[in-house]
Order: sequence, then C-alpha cells, then structure tokens
Amino acid sequence: MKLATLNNGTRDGRLLIVSRDLSKAVYASTVVDTMIEALENWESVEEPLRNRYEHLNAGNLKDAFAFDPARVMSPLPRCYQFVDASAFLNHGDIMEKAFDLDVKKDKGIPILVQRQSDDFLGPRDDYPFPDEEDNCDFEGEFAVILDDVPMGVSPEDAEKHIKLITIMNDVSMRTHLFRELSMGFGFINAKPATVFAPVAVTLDELGDAWRHGRIHLDMRVKRNDEWFGNPNGGEMDFSFGQIISHLGYNRNLRAGAIVGSGTVSNQNCKEVGSACLAERRALDKIEYGEFRTDFIKFGETLEFDVLDSGGQSVFGAIKHRFVDSHK
Amino acid sequence: MKLATLNNGTRDGRLLIVSRDLSKAVYASTVVDTMIEALENWESVEEPLRNRYEHLNAGNLKDAFAFDPARVMSPLPRCYQFVDASAFLNHGDIMEKAFDLDVKKDKGIPILVQRQSDDFLGPRDDYPFPDEEDNCDFEGEFAVILDDVPMGVSPEDAEKHIKLITIMNDVSMRTHLFRELSMGFGFINAKPATVFAPVAVTLDELGDAWRHGRIHLDMRVKRNDEWFGNPNGGEMDFSFGQIISHLGYNRNLRAGAIVGSGTVSNQNCKEVGSACLAERRALDKIEYGEFRTDFIKFGETLEFDVLDSGGQSVFGAIKHRFVDSHK
Repeated sequence: MKLATLNNGTRDGRLLIVSRDLSKAVYASTVVDTMIEALENWESVEEPLRNRYEHLNAGNLKDAFAFDPARVMSPLPRCYQFVDASAFLNHGDIMEKAFDLDVKKDKGIPILVQRQSDDFLGPRDDYPFPDEEDNCDFEGEFAVILDDVPMGVSPEDAEKHIKLITIMNDVSMRTHLFRELSMGFGFINAKPATVFAPVAVTLDELGDAWRHGRIHLDMRVKRNDEWFGNPNGGEMDFSFGQIISHLGYNRNLRAGAIVGSGTVSNQNCKEVGSACLAERRALDKIEYGEFRTDFIKFGETLEFDVLDSGGQSVFGAIKHRFVDSHK
Repeated sequence: MKLATLNNGTRDGRLLIVSRDLSKAVYASTVVDTMIEALENWESVEEPLRNRYEHLNAGNLKDAFAFDPARVMSPLPRCYQFVDASAFLNHGDIMEKAFDLDVKKDKGIPILVQRQSDDFLGPRDDYPFPDEEDNCDFEGEFAVILDDVPMGVSPEDAEKHIKLITIMNDVSMRTHLFRELSMGFGFINAKPATVFAPVAVTLDELGDAWRHGRIHLDMRVKRNDEWFGNPNGGEMDFSFGQIISHLGYNRNLRAGAIVGSGTVSNQNCKEVGSACLAERRALDKIEYGEFRTDFIKFGETLEFDVLDSGGQSVFGAIKHRFVDSHK
C-alpha cells in the first residue's frame, strides 16, 4: 500500500491512497482523514485502506484522480519524534579518515541524532536557506515510520512497529555541522528542514528487498540532472530494529515517530558513488589531496529516487531546487 | 492567564482554564478544545480565553470545578519541536571544572540540544526508568512555549512569539550523558521523558519578574521533601529571545514549539543550592575531592515549585516519584 498527503492548506494535509504505479490517487477519507490519525489507529484502519488500495490498482474506483507529486506534502507533514541514525559506518569511516576526526564510538551502539519534526518539506518544494557560506549538502536516506512503541522494546519486536517506509533528503549545513559536532550537543543550525518523498509504503511493497531490517535497494541520486551515486541500502551496519530498540531503551515512542538510516554509503563507493557531498569531498581529499566537489549553490537541483526490480519508482522521486531564503 | 490540560484519555487531553490561585478550573471548550489548537490559533482564541479566565477568578462561573493537579497531563502533552538550551553558563563552568571537560564553545552562541517531544509526563505521574546504574538526575528549568515563528527571526521579534511559560524537570541519565556527550551527536538515552508543571501561564502573570527575556524567580527544588536549592532564573546568560533567534536562523518553528532554559544555576550556588544533582556533585568534588551526593534511587521523590512575590505558586508544583520500569 502506498500513502501520500495532499497539501490542502492545513498543517496535517489530507491522506491519499496512491496506486502502485504512482499514476492515480483517491482520498482516504472514507477511512481516515490524515496520516497521523492513520498511524495512531493503524490496527483498525489498515485493512479498509488496503481494500481501497487494491480497488484503486484494479481501476475500479470512479473517484480516482491523477496523482500529482507536486501537490503533496511530506507523507507525514509533521510528527512528535524524529531521530536520524548514522547506521552506515562506512560513511563515518571515510569522514574520519579525510578530516582526522576522532569520533568516540562504543561498539554495538548506533550513533543516533535527535531531530526536529515541525519543519518538513514536500518532495517538490523549493528549499530556502540563508547563506551559501553555510556549505549546504544533502544526504540521501531511507526512513521508517512507526506506530506506538513501548519502552524497552527488543530489536525483534521493534521491527513489528515499522508500518511505513519512505526516503528523505537530510539536508545538512556543513559549516555549522563541524562546529556543532565539536561542542558535543548534537545538531541545530546544521540540520534545518528535512525533505521527504511523495509517498510512504508498507513493507510488503518492497517484497524481498526488505529483509534483515534493511532496504536492499539503490538510493539513486542526481545533482543537476546528472548521476551522483546509487549506493545500496542493504549495507546498513545496524538494522532498523536494532536502532529503534536502542532508542527505546528508556522511553516510549509514539505513533508517527520517524527513524532515518543515515546517509546511504557503500564500501565500493568509488564505483557506486555517494549519497552526500561531504563523503565525495572526503574521497576527493583522500585520493587527490584536495576538494574537487563544491557544496550546493542557490539554483541547483537534486533528485532522489528508488526503483524496484521492475524499474518502477517505489516512493516517487524527491526533485527539488535550492533557493535564497532572502528572496 | 493560566492553562492546563486535563487527562481525559486522549493523546492531547482537554484544555482547562485555571484560576490564578490554582484552586478552580473550567473547560476551555467553549473557545477551543486542546492546547495545541489554542497555540495554532492564538490570535483568535486569546481574548475569549482571557475573558473566561477573568470570570473564573471573579467566581462568576457556575461550571467551575476544583482544580486537581493530579489529573492533568503536561500543559502541552506532546508537540512537534522541543529544544533545550544550556543558558546558565555557570552550570557548565562548574561541570567542566569538576570533571576536566573541555567543551568547545563559541562566544555568543548558546548551547542548544534538540529533544524528543512525544514522551512528556504530567506533574504528578510516577517516573519509570529501567536501571539505577543509569545514574538518574533531575534538572529544574524554565520553559517557554511559542506560536509560529518564521525563519530568520530577530531576538526582539522572537520574544513576541513567546505565548506561555512553564517549568519542567529535564530528567537526565548521567551514565549515558557523559558517553553521548563524548560522541558529539547529542543526547538519546541520556534524556528520556521530560516532566512539566501543572499549568503554563501567559507573560503578564509574571509581572515584572518577566524582564529582559528572563524569569526572575527562584526555582525551588526539594528532594524527598527536603530543601535542595532555590537558584534564580534571572541569571541566564542568554535571553529566551536570543536562544530562539539562534535556533530559528535557518528553520521555521511551528506553533507549540517548547524551548527550555537549561538547569537553573547561580554564581552563589553555595548559598542558594543547585537545581540538579550533577552540579551539586561537581561542587562536592571541587570542595571535598569526593562525591557526597548520590544519584536518584527508585522510590525517591522530587518537587519543583516557583512562587511569586506574594508567595503564590505560579505554575503549580511538579511533585513526582521515581519507580522501576520493570515493576
């Protein structure tokens, strides 16, 4: 099942059911009005939503209309809990090597970053930021969306609470990131609004690409319409179940919590490329002794897409442009 | 005006207007149902809520009932953005001195920590945590609650978006805090659920105790019914306006965002005491070369209260007990 949120001018938007091929949509309002309500009542709404989804795919719904990814918000336009992991250790290893960083890690404990969840952007929204000197970067990531998760959840049980999967561009301002990392209190100016894909999908949509708590599909990144990388999500060093279990050690997670994977990164990054500029720049520095990749300037565009084995876009593409927030 | 949220079994509860002396309450539902809706529509709801508040104080409302702080949730039971500052630099200075920490700070930039906002506790709820070895601590803090704040807000304009003030116990697990601080990515297991006071109040309730973007009142902390400290909020090194402006440099803050002050700490802490154990322990270590203050054990109780110049509790008291989450 694929779900999206129409931008109808409200803060939570209006829930849409979207056909598997992303061509058609119907309102979910015969069942539930918004994504957050759906997640809060997943057990009772899942079956009627799926029923309507199957009819939509079969072409049986007279009230179906063309799905337009330019008219949607983030699938979950705001929520109460958003944590981003850094679960591809390969990425951290490259960064530490290039920049002589000494990140003190505890083996077996995932790096997690608490994030804001009130300023999300839709997949085609322009991205305003104030200053090119902030060194704007992107991070292509997978993200899971949960229902209510009780404190002390095991990794196995945690996976059962994953109701939806999507992708995101975890926009990062590197000038602030290095400063804030050295302070130790996490990210503020380094991590402004996050951008999400047009739709979020249930696990069954991924088939066997969802296994071991990981998404074994390529994150295809284009910068200004040119290939930038297509690393695979299967190389996560921690499963989503392990990440959620660590996060939930001494707290309850409420319906709608979003957990990100961290920027997708593969051992063979020379062949498959990267999902963020910082990693590419680090590889530049290691290989050439200098940076050969610039940060984002106003006017540049990015695209993030994930295709299934049949070549069908799973989540729809994030395609967005960076603009000067003062204009 | 004083506002609270009745625990009626829903996630957002039911908004109450509470009399100035905290003795009586009425439902706000003739105006608005929940605190988050009130904050999202502050301009239109403020006057009718105030009107009802004045009638409540005058004893004119037949539907008024006794206010019971044991039946309320956090004034805002969940929200989309919660950031905690560490705006009393005296606290950090003591910690760094006692523990030989080297926190890299940039002069003029407040330390802020992104926090979770889906697991808040009410003022009289038991506080479950899994293990005394986590070294459970408290932090008595002031907090402000905002309406919508646009990106790039100035410190002066930021203060105009502060609609409500309350207090909180920013519970901290020190074993995890030191580990997570050394990693640099902020706090996860170190900062589980936060506990808020029975009511949140508009700025006018503070009279001239609200000035220069700070609350010039004592945070009165008791541990197991004994005085622990009463440091004053006026010594904040950054005003709330400065903190919000820094936070909003490159992001929008949405209605209901909560910003904390950091643990209240004064230069004359030997006389006025502290609002957290870690600071008292640091002072122990500096003075005696050893710790003489233990972390929280299961069964202990805490109380946080703030009185106005007439001795009236402003926000109602947080009074809660710590319990074993496995029982």
